[in-house]
Amino acid sequence: MSAPALTSVAIAGAGLIGTSIGLALRRSGVRVHLSDASPEVARRAAELGAGTLEPPAGPVDLFVAAAPPYAVADVLSDAIAARVARTYTDVAGVKAAPLREVAARHPGTTALVGGHPMAGRERSGPGAAQADLFEGRPWVVTPLPGSGAEDVGRVEELAGRCGATAVRMGPEAHDRAVALVSHAPHLLAALVACRLAGGEEAAVAVAGTGVRDITRVAGSDPAPWVSLLGANARPVAEVLQALRADLDVALESLDALAADPGDQRAAERMRTLLAAGVTGRERLPGRHGGRPETLAVVPVVVPDRPGELARLLAFIGEAGVNVEDLGLEHSLGQPAGLALVSVRPEAAERLGEVLAAGGWSVHA
Amino acid sequence: MSAPALTSVAIAGAGLIGTSIGLALRRSGVRVHLSDASPEVARRAAELGAGTLEPPAGPVDLFVAAAPPYAVADVLSDAIAARVARTYTDVAGVKAAPLREVAARHPGTTALVGGHPMAGRERSGPGAAQADLFEGRPWVVTPLPGSGAEDVGRVEELAGRCGATAVRMGPEAHDRAVALVSHAPHLLAALVACRLAGGEEAAVAVAGTGVRDITRVAGSDPAPWVSLLGANARPVAEVLQALRADLDVALESLDALAADPGDQRAAERMRTLLAAGVTGRERLPGRHGGRPETLAVVPVVVPDRPGELARLLAFIGEAGVNVEDLGLEHSLGQPAGLALVSVRPEAAERLGEVLAAGGWSVHA
Repeated sequence: MSAPALTSVAIAGAGLIGTSIGLALRRSGVRVHLSDASPEVARRAAELGAGTLEPPAGPVDLFVAAAPPYAVADVLSDAIAARVARTYTDVAGVKAAPLREVAARHPGTTALVGGHPMAGRERSGPGAAQADLFEGRPWVVTPLPGSGAEDVGRVEELAGRCGATAVRMGPEAHDRAVALVSHAPHLLAALVACRLAGGEEAAVAVAGTGVRDITRVAGSDPAPWVSLLGANARPVAEVLQALRADLDVALESLDALAADPGDQRAAERMRTLLAAGVTGRERLPGRHGGRPETLAVVPVVVPDRPGELARLLAFIGEAGVNVEDLGLEHSLGQPAGLALVSVRPEAAERLGEVLAAGGWSVHA
Repeated sequence: MSAPALTSVAIAGAGLIGTSIGLALRRSGVRVHLSDASPEVARRAAELGAGTLEPPAGPVDLFVAAAPPYAVADVLSDAIAARVARTYTDVAGVKAAPLREVAARHPGTTALVGGHPMAGRERSGPGAAQADLFEGRPWVVTPLPGSGAEDVGRVEELAGRCGATAVRMGPEAHDRAVALVSHAPHLLAALVACRLAGGEEAAVAVAGTGVRDITRVAGSDPAPWVSLLGANARPVAEVLQALRADLDVALESLDALAADPGDQRAAERMRTLLAAGVTGRERLPGRHGGRPETLAVVPVVVPDRPGELARLLAFIGEAGVNVEDLGLEHSLGQPAGLALVSVRPEAAERLGEVLAAGGWSVHA
């Protein structure tokens, strides 16, 4: 059963996410009514073309609470009480507790369906918004047991009109999922980075790309992460408790190996942990969100001056090879870098030959 | 005091590192004598041009033990006993214990200086070797208290002839450094990846770029890492014990926040940890191995077909802007990706304007 097409949407909260949704919906011809606790923020979003500040004359098809986790239950409850829409959703990064609170305040409602577009930016506010913020991203849709099919359909249509891929999940399953793939890894990356804060200067100076990748997310502003981790505390703690048990196994193995480098049982326990890590890593989705595909990496030396990387990629493009992923390795006091060009395995050999023939230094 | 120029080097071990050193030295005209426990491996390296299999007629300038950590002490000791060279070094990833063992077997020797070229590849063996493997990488040189100045100079010359940057450090300081910036982070990345191994399918499917970056190194072959972690067990355990203490603080904070989401003291403890992570992250060297520089990231939408990324980078090159770093964001079921173009901050605004004027969709 498909929901009726969305014609009118009210968005409460004109920050990055609310304004970006408004821009995407306006682009597809939906009437959008914007509001924000700050009249200045709301006016800025309206000026950007994300919707009108006029309140709707009657109930809209869909109300979107674009508020942070700690505020979203109140915003949704007030809107349901005022009967402003046929269906109600939100965009918060934590789902179970806020939705449970709203459902408790409005028992029997079928019009409530949670949502979480998994996209964001380092910048915030309406000025950072963009109509294509959600293009190609998952938008988790979390119905409650009593949610109506039409209501779920409206929220999935919202995701689709924003260019996202709707993924249906229960609220608790969503919270466990983001704890596992986002919140707990973020915290661990921060703990690795904490160690660097107190490290010797000479030690930190020889750091390579591995630890740079591991700690990249640890450079983020702490404030929104404190809020997310707090709102999803129980599922995050469960992931970290399990990780702590593995860490204790690793520490026991290291203690045993420090006492006796030939301790084969300790080495085997360590190998088992690392092998489980390989298995887990292989489960992550590849570039297109499907099953991971094994890509071949072709490393090419690139002189560090404007246009050289472009010249390399133009060369690859002319050879008709698609670059699936690209990394740059970082050099220490040297004028050349290494481009790690990922291509489909069947294209790797020919690419290596073509590049070498074209005068590029390939680390074959 | 500078050492006499290297004219002859013996390399014991013709794997990836030994053969790459041979190739680099041959390129600069040094006479290289290769050997390996496997005659087949040695012959392959010699065929690649990494040196001759003829044993030297008399002592060479420098002997390089290109053996793994567990074998390196024996290889160095035997060579010193046979007086095959003026100076002796190695390339193992752990320094204190093997060098201590050799020094104990040859008390009073001044000819021993440890080394660790911080470069590698996913592949191994002589076939994966390349003369420029060490270009722009740090090569940690670890003298012992009694090492002669000429001997240290010969090892630093080896690093320089391989295109690496020699960095002098004591053996214990080296081991603490690699524990901090490589071994412990690698193990933590593996532990995060271990959690994914047991995660629900739907959860793993919504994973984004953050956890992909954090766990990238966890995809490596476990065997050499088990060996490295075992050989450097005490320094790695010290980093992990400190990390475990921070993890316990995080777990206590999460427990408190699960019980009372309004617990401000728990939230503040969490914020303090994340802020220390930001500080640690900022200490990592930037692209050129100097102090980290803050780069501006310009995100640009790139259609996923051959040549589009090249067209983008050619466009940027024509604008005279140097790309300092480049990332690709991964999309889920969508035909477009996002290129994250890092440039010096002063170039970002103009680049955004130039790209937009050229028809590129910039996430400004």
